[in-house]
Amino acid sequence: MTNTTTMSPKAPVAVSTDASAVTAPTQFIKTRLETYAYRRFGGGAAPPLVFLQHFTGTLDNWDPAVTDPLAGGREVILFESAGLGRSTGEVPTTIAGMTGHFLAFADALGLTQIDLLGFSLGGMVAQQAALDRPSLVRKMLLVGTAPEGGEDIMHLEKPELRKILEDPSLSGYQVLVKLFFTPSESSQAAGQAFATRLGARTEDREPLSGPKVAQAQIAAFRAWERVEGERFGKLRRITQPCLVVNGVRDTMIPVRNSYLLAEHLPNAMLLTYPDAGHGSLFQFAASFVRQATLFLDL
Amino acid sequence: MTNTTTMSPKAPVAVSTDASAVTAPTQFIKTRLETYAYRRFGGGAAPPLVFLQHFTGTLDNWDPAVTDPLAGGREVILFESAGLGRSTGEVPTTIAGMTGHFLAFADALGLTQIDLLGFSLGGMVAQQAALDRPSLVRKMLLVGTAPEGGEDIMHLEKPELRKILEDPSLSGYQVLVKLFFTPSESSQAAGQAFATRLGARTEDREPLSGPKVAQAQIAAFRAWERVEGERFGKLRRITQPCLVVNGVRDTMIPVRNSYLLAEHLPNAMLLTYPDAGHGSLFQFAASFVRQATLFLDL
Repeated sequence: MTNTTTMSPKAPVAVSTDASAVTAPTQFIKTRLETYAYRRFGGGAAPPLVFLQHFTGTLDNWDPAVTDPLAGGREVILFESAGLGRSTGEVPTTIAGMTGHFLAFADALGLTQIDLLGFSLGGMVAQQAALDRPSLVRKMLLVGTAPEGGEDIMHLEKPELRKILEDPSLSGYQVLVKLFFTPSESSQAAGQAFATRLGARTEDREPLSGPKVAQAQIAAFRAWERVEGERFGKLRRITQPCLVVNGVRDTMIPVRNSYLLAEHLPNAMLLTYPDAGHGSLFQFAASFVRQATLFLDL
Repeated sequence: MTNTTTMSPKAPVAVSTDASAVTAPTQFIKTRLETYAYRRFGGGAAPPLVFLQHFTGTLDNWDPAVTDPLAGGREVILFESAGLGRSTGEVPTTIAGMTGHFLAFADALGLTQIDLLGFSLGGMVAQQAALDRPSLVRKMLLVGTAPEGGEDIMHLEKPELRKILEDPSLSGYQVLVKLFFTPSESSQAAGQAFATRLGARTEDREPLSGPKVAQAQIAAFRAWERVEGERFGKLRRITQPCLVVNGVRDTMIPVRNSYLLAEHLPNAMLLTYPDAGHGSLFQFAASFVRQATLFLDL
């Protein structure tokens, strides 16, 4: 069922010993579905922590201020799903489809018990993975995300988001600084620091996502918003300890979706940050790492 | 203005060296307004942490599982407001009136910078104190409470609460076990452990609150629910770091009041606990103490 061959277009690497998202080499693994790019670094007694990425984000969008300290106590694995970066295949138009790719990846790596950090779109894949393969997932960090049947999920056509996305003066990470952080001076400063950290990786980077990726992922968001059957009923089956995190000013997936998660998941703590948007984990990286470590280790 | 005479009907005590709510002697201080009962114990580098109590609660209602570990890093001061326990005077019918008593107490003790842990009614007094005397308050823990203009605050006439309050089989702490904890087996077990901890103090206890206390405090809740001027506008002036905490199943002051606090206070983190009611800090005492310590010390 699984194919654990590790291959790389550059040089074969087994497990990186360089515990940073800035320098960890990109690795590739062929599976029963596609060949996925990933990065793997750090180590420790806790189960590996797999990072599931946000809308249009690639491996290069993980903030080392979050990944690197967490890699001090466990292996960190950054996963590039199908159709993104140098992973092969097409981006599915459903969360279930994306979850299938993630499970093929986990199987190919031989992972049997992991923790998940799902951010935004990645938080939806994490929930679906916990439903589809409960034995695989020990604990979950669900950041800036929403339950199936959630509200106002990634409506890029909203004026406050369209204004940013159509601003010709913004490009590259500066779009993220506006989308993920609030307009306040301190949040914008944190956003610039975040952009600088992302820019620290200068080699072995992934290609950027194009409109085709965005289109498929938006279709998945629209499907995820639909209520089918008992609203939030599935959440009762996710019995893993969860830490739900968001900024109270998230304009992409508003914080009330985090309230819904914390109210309907049987075993979820909720943490919200003030004057923070979708990227609260990057704005409050030190606090987030402290909280994530407490949650994962205790 | 202040009168710092300390007096006790039993024996004069300056500062207790017994760092536990179970054994700390009750002290008394005469002020410009009333003579207040209080308990003071512990010590450390951080500012004193003053505890402000819930509806009808007295000094005896503080859980040693919360107070005692926190007293390891700072002085803990438990305050008995006017008309409660052995404090003199009448219970005011407004939060502002209760805050006046608290400030008279703080002045009499010569406190100039403190942290506050306000639970339920006490959280409202804490907010008012931060507005009336911003220089006094460094940080605040606001647990199971609501902003002025909040929703569904302590409506004891609601069927789910009336059922408990009118149950002839419940008395003493068993009423609190039902009111502060959820019906789940694990929450009820935590409630019984809480009741046992409260019962550990067998001497030098306060008299129980009667219907007159309840009536005045309920009047204060009704006044606090009223929206006057811009709803939540005052919260913008509370710039102190705050940690807002609640259980997602609080039936006495529903969790959406905690959302409102975290969304409108400029510098508040929110933490919610699963399968927990009004007494989330007692149900998850170890986690709460860890979070409170992080918040107060960093």
